[in-house]
Amino acid sequence: MITLTHDQIEPLIDWTAATDAIRQAYIDASAGRVNLPPVGHITFPETGGDCHIKYGHVTGTTSFVIKVATGFPRNADAGLPNGNGLVLVLSSETGAVQAMLHDQMLLTDIRTALGGVVATQSLARPDARKLLVIGTSVQAQWQVRTHAREIPGLSEITMWGRTPAKILAAADVLAPFAQVKPTQDLRSAVENADIIVTATGATRALIRSEWVRPGTHITAVGADAPGKQELDPALVAKSDLITVDSISQCSDHGEVSHAIKAGHLRVDQLVELGKVLEGSAAGRPSDQAITLTDLTGIAAQDIAIATAVLNAHQDQRPR
Amino acid sequence: MITLTHDQIEPLIDWTAATDAIRQAYIDASAGRVNLPPVGHITFPETGGDCHIKYGHVTGTTSFVIKVATGFPRNADAGLPNGNGLVLVLSSETGAVQAMLHDQMLLTDIRTALGGVVATQSLARPDARKLLVIGTSVQAQWQVRTHAREIPGLSEITMWGRTPAKILAAADVLAPFAQVKPTQDLRSAVENADIIVTATGATRALIRSEWVRPGTHITAVGADAPGKQELDPALVAKSDLITVDSISQCSDHGEVSHAIKAGHLRVDQLVELGKVLEGSAAGRPSDQAITLTDLTGIAAQDIAIATAVLNAHQDQRPR
Repeated sequence: MITLTHDQIEPLIDWTAATDAIRQAYIDASAGRVNLPPVGHITFPETGGDCHIKYGHVTGTTSFVIKVATGFPRNADAGLPNGNGLVLVLSSETGAVQAMLHDQMLLTDIRTALGGVVATQSLARPDARKLLVIGTSVQAQWQVRTHAREIPGLSEITMWGRTPAKILAAADVLAPFAQVKPTQDLRSAVENADIIVTATGATRALIRSEWVRPGTHITAVGADAPGKQELDPALVAKSDLITVDSISQCSDHGEVSHAIKAGHLRVDQLVELGKVLEGSAAGRPSDQAITLTDLTGIAAQDIAIATAVLNAHQDQRPR
Repeated sequence: MITLTHDQIEPLIDWTAATDAIRQAYIDASAGRVNLPPVGHITFPETGGDCHIKYGHVTGTTSFVIKVATGFPRNADAGLPNGNGLVLVLSSETGAVQAMLHDQMLLTDIRTALGGVVATQSLARPDARKLLVIGTSVQAQWQVRTHAREIPGLSEITMWGRTPAKILAAADVLAPFAQVKPTQDLRSAVENADIIVTATGATRALIRSEWVRPGTHITAVGADAPGKQELDPALVAKSDLITVDSISQCSDHGEVSHAIKAGHLRVDQLVELGKVLEGSAAGRPSDQAITLTDLTGIAAQDIAIATAVLNAHQDQRPR
């Protein structure tokens, strides 16, 4: 059995191959080729912590994946990260455990960021050059890193955050990977952007509908649980194309769920990103269209990124 | 994070401490102190394989446990074991992964065998000396080993199996741990026994009611899934005390479920073993009583054995 730690995993990521794997994961999920049983869940009332167990198998592949993710909000008081966990890869032919990737959430961060990249590749205008990342979270930083790497020709990457010190700290951390322009003027930043990625833990709308220019693509990755919200429901309603990673998840607790509950949007207006990527649904309608992608995270991505890391590890080993 | 392989785990077992931990697990489970979410399950139709994910937490303890167990029946064709898997131990205070026990089913075998030992300790007559183990499976062999070790004063251990070569092979494997008397005469063996443990994969009754002497204790561990059966429903019905590890599991798919379905037994006649061990329900009624324990296996045992192994490992490490 292969065991890889957090620090061993990151150097194994082949970013273009991993992006391709995430793209294929959306296609497989939308085509019904992923067997995803209900997510397991256990809570710890003493600390407010919880643990999710997500697992699944892509039909026709020789491995399956079990992801264990914990979230303990009081860890921050002790200077520990809230999130933790690991990913197991098992043979779907013999049941043997092939690998334990003790990623401590790294793979979740990366597969989420690459979801944003895939959405940008598929739905932003071909001449889109200016990226605005809203938020300073670890995920916001990963969105910057992965976009800088996988989207050629970006001329400007702007980051907005509520707290000046956090924006500046994030820009410093990101300096080896991308030049980030910090801002506190959200309205101007939105008006100026071709591509907007929101990655905050916000619980009410940050972007107002009237700020967004025609032709903009927006990907929202922050609203991954009930109660979270980053966009004005009116913006959701005025978008010309709304793609989602999972219609069932996004209509339940994604960014678009607020617009659905407010009556601005119908579930049958949602298009799964995998269908657009596969070519069985139309993508961006025009250069003037506003396109919106709502990503809540699906287990097919966990399977894809874990398999990609394991393949990269096996390719590196002497034979 | 601590990683232990199959071969590292067995020497860490402190048998008496582990038996105590399994006893406490039954008590905790019956007292409602174990949070056990529904078991996760995924199947692989191409091979007939499946994977179960059992997880839970004992209230007030600082760890929780996730057990991944796979069963791939066609593995035998390739000379591989059908069962495989691992056990994860995580902090219920921070969510950090404390240990991965890559036991490949060893801990399940041991916790099941120790369940039999706890039942014998609690329910067999104090002067019981003769043990009959029915079956030659790995679990039957573990029942011999654990009984020989933890039940003082046994004068005779007999093993019955359907296939002579398998009984003799099992006796040879067990020779370093116990002297086993092989037999093919099931009736005489049952008539002679004080304690009977059944650990077969039988799907119809092996023991007839009239063979069993007054004062005998019987533990059935083989019927752990729908369709399996080892005892005559009339024997179940005539038992003076029927204890079970879990009323819900045993009435659904345990040995006693057949007698319930046949109308020989009511669910309210079942007593949880944990209640007897705790002292809140009566144990053996008399020296002449026939007592029966039906064990299907509960996740509280998985938690207990994994925690016991991890504690033993930590005690051994230099500080």
